[in-house]
Order: sequence, then C-alpha cells, then structure tokens
Amino acid sequence: MNSQQLFGEILRKRSFLCVGLDTEIEKIPEHLKNGEDSIFEFNKQIVDATQAFTIAYKPNLAFYEAYGLKGWQCLEKTVQYIRKNYPEQFIIADAKRGDIGNTSKMYAKAFFENMDFDAITVAPYMGEDSVTPFLGHKGKWVILLGLTSNKGADDFQFLDTPPLYQQVIKKSQFWASPEELMYVAGATRASILGDIRKLAPNHFLLVPGVGAQGGSLAEVAKYGMNAKCGLIVNSSRGIIYADKSQGFAKVAGEKAKELRDEMDDLLTAFLPKI
Amino acid sequence: MNSQQLFGEILRKRSFLCVGLDTEIEKIPEHLKNGEDSIFEFNKQIVDATQAFTIAYKPNLAFYEAYGLKGWQCLEKTVQYIRKNYPEQFIIADAKRGDIGNTSKMYAKAFFENMDFDAITVAPYMGEDSVTPFLGHKGKWVILLGLTSNKGADDFQFLDTPPLYQQVIKKSQFWASPEELMYVAGATRASILGDIRKLAPNHFLLVPGVGAQGGSLAEVAKYGMNAKCGLIVNSSRGIIYADKSQGFAKVAGEKAKELRDEMDDLLTAFLPKI
Repeated sequence: MNSQQLFGEILRKRSFLCVGLDTEIEKIPEHLKNGEDSIFEFNKQIVDATQAFTIAYKPNLAFYEAYGLKGWQCLEKTVQYIRKNYPEQFIIADAKRGDIGNTSKMYAKAFFENMDFDAITVAPYMGEDSVTPFLGHKGKWVILLGLTSNKGADDFQFLDTPPLYQQVIKKSQFWASPEELMYVAGATRASILGDIRKLAPNHFLLVPGVGAQGGSLAEVAKYGMNAKCGLIVNSSRGIIYADKSQGFAKVAGEKAKELRDEMDDLLTAFLPKI
Repeated sequence: MNSQQLFGEILRKRSFLCVGLDTEIEKIPEHLKNGEDSIFEFNKQIVDATQAFTIAYKPNLAFYEAYGLKGWQCLEKTVQYIRKNYPEQFIIADAKRGDIGNTSKMYAKAFFENMDFDAITVAPYMGEDSVTPFLGHKGKWVILLGLTSNKGADDFQFLDTPPLYQQVIKKSQFWASPEELMYVAGATRASILGDIRKLAPNHFLLVPGVGAQGGSLAEVAKYGMNAKCGLIVNSSRGIIYADKSQGFAKVAGEKAKELRDEMDDLLTAFLPKI
C-alpha cells in the first residue's frame, strides 16, 4: 500500500485509527478462554466489530511469541483473516526489530513475504545497516522508533543536542523516502509532535499512547497532522479490553466508533477543503 | 546459571567460546537440505561436534522466525536438545528485543519460561522500563546492547559526550547487578573494549564479531578480560559454515577447537594463577 492509498482510506473511513491487537489470554473474556483457538477467536471478533472505524491493525509480536508455536499460529491466522476479509486495512507488525544486515533481511522475509504485513516497527540503535535491509519491498514500510511513549524514553532518547530522537529522524531520511519510512512518535508529549512534524513534514507518524497510555487526540491532530493527514493513531487496551462480557466486541466497536467520530471532526477541522 | 557457574565452565572447558546458530537453509550442506527437519538436523550435528569446545550457543531468532511456524519448531527443538544433552551450556536468545513494560514481560515469559533460554539480548533505545521486565528471573540474564559490531553502530552509538554506548552502560548499572546483566561489546574495535571494561569491571561481555565480522581474539582478551574472564566470545559463520560437504560438522568441530586452543592459551596468559 502506498501513501496515497493510505490517505485515500483515511478519507473514505474518516478515520486514522489503528487498533493494537495486544491480546493476552488472561485479559480476554471468560467465555472465550477455554476455546480451541481463543486468541484468534478474540482477535477475529474484535476486528469484525471495529473494522468499519479503523484503517489499520497492529499486533504486538511479544503477545504472540509468549505463547510459543500456538501464538505464532494465532498471529498468522489473524493476519490472514484481516488480509482476506478487509484487504484495505494496513497491517503493522509491532516487532521493534533491528539487527545486522543479514539478520534484518531474514526478519523482512518473515514479516513481509511469509506473513504479508504492510509494515514493521524497527529500533534505530544499530543504525543504517540494521534498517535498510527492511526497505525495497514494494508497498511495504519501515516504521522507525523516533520518540516512544514510555517513561524510559527519557533515559536515552533526549540525550545530546539536538536530542537523539531528532538525530534519528534526521539521519534516517537519507536512507529512505517518505514512501517507505514512517516514524513512531509518542503522544504522551503532544507538543513534541510539533518538533517531529517540522523535521519530517511529509512522513506518516504512528502515534501510540492514546487511550490507556494517556495522550489527547485533539492535541495529536493539532501538532501532528499534515496536508495528507500523516497520522496513524493507535489505541489498544482502551478498545480491546473495554468490556469483558459476552458483548465485548460490540463495546470495542463502540469505543472505536467514538474515536473515529472524534477523528472525523478533526479531519474536518484541520483539512477543511478535502 | 550464575556468574560463578559460568566462570567454572570457562575454566573446566578452557574456553569462552559461544557458537552462533545463525542457520539459513540456503547455506547448509546440500545433503541436508531436503530432509524433513533440516535446520534442526544441521544444528544438532553442529552442537554435537562443537560442544566440547564451547560454553554457550546463541541462536539468532531472525533466522528461525524467517521460516514461520516451522522455524519456531526448529528453535524450540534446538534449545531442548542442547538443554537435555549438554545442560552445562549457556543458551542465549539473540533477539534484540525491547518494548514497553507489559510487552517486555511477555517476551521474558516466551524466552525464559516457555523456552528455557539462559539469556536474551535486549536493545536499550526505549530505556529502563523496557529492560527491567526481563530481570528478576533467577539465574537468567539480560544482555544489553552496548556497542555493536556493525557499520551502522557509528550512526548513533557514538553520539554525545560521553558517547551514547557509554551512557547506556553507565545508566543501566543502576537497574541490575552484574549477576543478571551483561553487555554486547563489539570486537571490531578492540581498543574500545578497554573503555567498556573500565565502565563495567565486573560484568560479562558478549563479544560478537570474531571471525567473519573481523576482530582479533588476542586483542579482545587483552582489552576485555577481567579476573573472572568476563568474556563470552561469539563466532557464527566462521564455524558453522566452514565446510559444506558431508563432513561439515567435523570441520566445524575443528574450527571450534582451534578457537578453544587459542582461548586456552589466552586464559593461561591473562589468568596465570587459576
């Protein structure tokens, strides 16, 4: 999927919402826990209930790896299910990978070829030759960690002048175009989104941390939106664990719709002519 | 395994060698390629042939994930095989993970509980709360990326004064003791190992990059060894792909023995009284 197609979906759905599929067996509704394939079943119902209001899904790989082989099967089935039934959705492997060249190539093969993800999150610490092997897969994206939304982001990402996260965003633009590179830009500090947007005016930003991690959608739009929206805003726990009853999926859908409605208004406010 | 046990194995084997199991189907000998379980079969033969000369094995996760479910099965089988037959070996998941707290906890569960690895490599970019969830598993270790051995290490790891990799090593010592924290310390620049050793006098250092990535073992020992050795030196391609004939495992064993013999001499030279 290229950026124009992604923007097209945003306009069609009036949404730039990504739902994070951080599925844990302990947190899913009781009635699903003892099923044969409970994690996939949960994901499937969440996706069916939310897809009208989202443009993207983001399974976090850790949650699947934690269940070993069975987890990987659930992940593959989830990606296949979304791809088959809702082919317009952008599917992000939240993997935060990054290793030397030949290893990153293997990861790229795993996520882009074997599993048909659209994008993978990549950590920048090891530099250019840990990132570029993920590039050059037509229609596929690297989403590089710029500023993350966790407390530990303060430990290293703000070191140096200009701060490390800004140097990551600047330098990595020599490695790839905005047609295959996005940035993770933490939303718990929305004003800093403005600084990131200045450094990367044309890139899509994946904004985690709206919802359970805090962060206001209006602030994110104010500081982060560009002329082609340029935002994918994620919410995980605030949607998928909003309710634990038999009606969990319906409630998840309602929560997603609430965010979509807010996004609709923000698109109207910031992109009035489109 | 605690550090005293690890040092005990180093003295018993007269070796601080780790063999990297970066197994790719394209690179294994022809006669194994069409087998039912060729990657595991390759690993098994490599391990059997080299274990007398090594104290550790390090499967790089990317190479297994690239083969999807089948890859994970091979990885699990490989870990189980080593654990069962050579329980004294230290098994490192070269995963370079690192994510927010609850996610890292899931990874810790995957690698330490489900798969019984002894250690996992972790990337520092996201800071303390991405690292600490891996701690507190008795006898298990975090190996934090300090200085990596790839070209891209220059992009960010040397930024700021003191350089970022030194700040990572300093700050992370507040998070964990040398009984559960090691560092990756790239060997392509052996003199810098001396700087790392000064910052972390008591920590084990995992040194990649001896062999195919370059780096001299004598230099590594000179700059990196402490009173309890404190080194685990990895070689991957130089051992496992040294030969592609039917006799590949025998040659791998010979290559491992060559490195062990050199390590034996270096242990004698630098730790003469033990």
